[in-house]
Amino acid sequence: MIDETHDPARASWIASANGHADFPIQNLPFGVFSPPDGGTPRGGVAIGGSILDLWAAASAGLFAGAARDAAEAASGPALNPLLALGDGPRIALRRRLSALLDRDGPERGRIGKLADRLLHPIDRCALHLPAAIGDYTDFFAGIQHATNTGRLFRPDNPLLPNYKYVPVAYHGRASSVRVSGVPVRRPSGQRKPPDQPAPDFGPCRTLDYELELGIWVGPGNDQGVPIPIARAGAHVAGFCLLNDWSARDIQAWEYQPLGPFLAKSFHTTISPWVVTAEAMAPFRVPARPRGADEPAPLPYLSDAADQAGGGLAIRFAVALLTPRMREAGRAPHKLSAVGADALYWTVAQMVSHHTSNGCNLRPGDLFGSGTLSGADPGSFGSLMELTQGGRAPLMLPDGETRRFLEDGDEVILTAQATAPGRVPIGFGACRGVVLGAG
Amino acid sequence: MIDETHDPARASWIASANGHADFPIQNLPFGVFSPPDGGTPRGGVAIGGSILDLWAAASAGLFAGAARDAAEAASGPALNPLLALGDGPRIALRRRLSALLDRDGPERGRIGKLADRLLHPIDRCALHLPAAIGDYTDFFAGIQHATNTGRLFRPDNPLLPNYKYVPVAYHGRASSVRVSGVPVRRPSGQRKPPDQPAPDFGPCRTLDYELELGIWVGPGNDQGVPIPIARAGAHVAGFCLLNDWSARDIQAWEYQPLGPFLAKSFHTTISPWVVTAEAMAPFRVPARPRGADEPAPLPYLSDAADQAGGGLAIRFAVALLTPRMREAGRAPHKLSAVGADALYWTVAQMVSHHTSNGCNLRPGDLFGSGTLSGADPGSFGSLMELTQGGRAPLMLPDGETRRFLEDGDEVILTAQATAPGRVPIGFGACRGVVLGAG
Repeated sequence: MIDETHDPARASWIASANGHADFPIQNLPFGVFSPPDGGTPRGGVAIGGSILDLWAAASAGLFAGAARDAAEAASGPALNPLLALGDGPRIALRRRLSALLDRDGPERGRIGKLADRLLHPIDRCALHLPAAIGDYTDFFAGIQHATNTGRLFRPDNPLLPNYKYVPVAYHGRASSVRVSGVPVRRPSGQRKPPDQPAPDFGPCRTLDYELELGIWVGPGNDQGVPIPIARAGAHVAGFCLLNDWSARDIQAWEYQPLGPFLAKSFHTTISPWVVTAEAMAPFRVPARPRGADEPAPLPYLSDAADQAGGGLAIRFAVALLTPRMREAGRAPHKLSAVGADALYWTVAQMVSHHTSNGCNLRPGDLFGSGTLSGADPGSFGSLMELTQGGRAPLMLPDGETRRFLEDGDEVILTAQATAPGRVPIGFGACRGVVLGAG
Repeated sequence: MIDETHDPARASWIASANGHADFPIQNLPFGVFSPPDGGTPRGGVAIGGSILDLWAAASAGLFAGAARDAAEAASGPALNPLLALGDGPRIALRRRLSALLDRDGPERGRIGKLADRLLHPIDRCALHLPAAIGDYTDFFAGIQHATNTGRLFRPDNPLLPNYKYVPVAYHGRASSVRVSGVPVRRPSGQRKPPDQPAPDFGPCRTLDYELELGIWVGPGNDQGVPIPIARAGAHVAGFCLLNDWSARDIQAWEYQPLGPFLAKSFHTTISPWVVTAEAMAPFRVPARPRGADEPAPLPYLSDAADQAGGGLAIRFAVALLTPRMREAGRAPHKLSAVGADALYWTVAQMVSHHTSNGCNLRPGDLFGSGTLSGADPGSFGSLMELTQGGRAPLMLPDGETRRFLEDGDEVILTAQATAPGRVPIGFGACRGVVLGAG
């Protein structure tokens, strides 16, 4: 639903929002922050370079009805209660926030007087995980990534026979998901290079990132009651960026027959803001069409509306900042860029598949899309793909090279949603610095 | 540590406890229940045919010091706070409970007068999950099961090369774990028999159970700080029985390359009681010795004390009650029995491996051991093994046969820990009836 909150002519009286790459008034993502004075974590909304404190705004009586319900649900240390409410109250709160922050809104005078109490500079706040993650599921929906990595293991048969029928996924580790900015300790584990007769234990030698879209689950379903694809959208609360840090040597040795475990469970980084499904409405595009040689999705994964609007016009980028670049005062070096059209499956197909066996989703569950990679190297979403498993090192600007991540390297994911005639919106960065093994 | 709480001469003034197969005074497992009058869920201790209400006992002033801390932590609707406290307060509470319930205890008169307020008949109470499960991890430590099932997929190479080095595991689904007694809805999903060119979607045709030992995690660790094997025991709060319901047809089609997902995530059943590590102390036996042709565990998985006492003298049994047996008033039919010596890896090795990459465990995390199967069919822990993938149907007493589970079938797991000169203790049943697909 596209409404007045998306109006490209709407600007905010918070000047930093206008023209902001991530958080113009057309975005209004939710997150959890601690204010500069060190108060308790609470819900907030990013607007330009500021965070609007939802608890303070609710206390000031700025909301009524469903918008007040949503603001109160978002006032605590985790947004799960807001996510549980579903899109009705969330949309009401969004509309009210958009009106309050509108440069030409009728209540500009009223809220302007409260600005000191309501607003905090974003870069002086601590940002937290937006929700307590009950379960984290990682999909494998980037078909080119599945092909590229499959080729490393199975050159003649990169894509397995189930790929175009099943939205393949595995359960991830919820406890080790951390917000952007938390350093990432290099994991140790069992490593068994092919030329070694037995494994040994030590620090990962082939640490990698994976660029993914994160998806926040809204109300969810009761156990035993699948979510039909036509109703899946109501259970998608919003989006973030996700770095599925991966220890390739640990993974290669451990993953048969039950899939990735310690190779992924040491750390997953997400961006701090829930960019709502509402904010994303203008950026919906047709889902990836099926080729003539590709099977139609099974009926439980087929929906005309999802086919027409299940795609997302988002472009993602990965950048790397090495210690040498940091010392030289260089900007991060862009490694790749890719669009969400890299996904073979839509988010609605993921929701419907996940619950098709009766598995229950809960508010605050998190999905990863799977690594986003395009057809050419400039669009690959991991170093394993960019360096062909380490065989072809990357050249960096100052003559440095990388096969995999080294200690001190920082990986920075960013993304922007764009559409003709619309104000672009972003996600905020998803970043993490690699620390040496403990 | 074996102390007076394990004294085989100790009996309780609660007569049903003495000689009770599961809950004599030497056990004292913790759980969460609602009393018959419908009060809020709260912590309790099973003693014979009764539950002692910990909140009521704490309110009556029966505990002091560390025992009171533990009882108060166990008074709410989930035992996570108790699990977080670690073994010091838990052991103090156990000792105090044992003294209070002792037929010859000095305070028998005092507590006897309170019995009406403190005790509820177990079969008139509703039992709940004992803790909110943050993450659920399923290991694959039953080596004969790994061999039996590997043979179905890879006849020449049943056990993969990593098996004897890596305590293989995968992340399971926490949201769909349910307590014993909750019916299990047959899942639907994609099925692709070999003779069919493409998959279709429908009810699982090959529904199975898996017999496992469940492990409750205690305090846990900070991210990035592994738990050394010598300290792993302090993070194991207790044990339960676990049925890892499995949809074999869904699993066969979906599981490559990332492991089981919807084949398992529709439902997992656990028994209601946390049988504490303390209660299990007399039943510790040497860990499974490594054969001459088997590699020694890597150093991070090696510990002399664990080798000496990391095994558990527990015998498990699986029984089946079909609708026809139920109508005929028959008792459940025993399908198999197996010991915990089926496990290639100890619980301490699981804890240490799980955290070796820095992954953080949290109080209330749950592990499954992997399916317990012995060498002969009478000890196989799943129908897939008992019927050779459905090729050799089981004969049941009334002439019925089973390849896999049918609607209305109830699977009942039980277990008992025994040791010479010790009073055996049990777990309570882990049961679930299969309902038809929705």
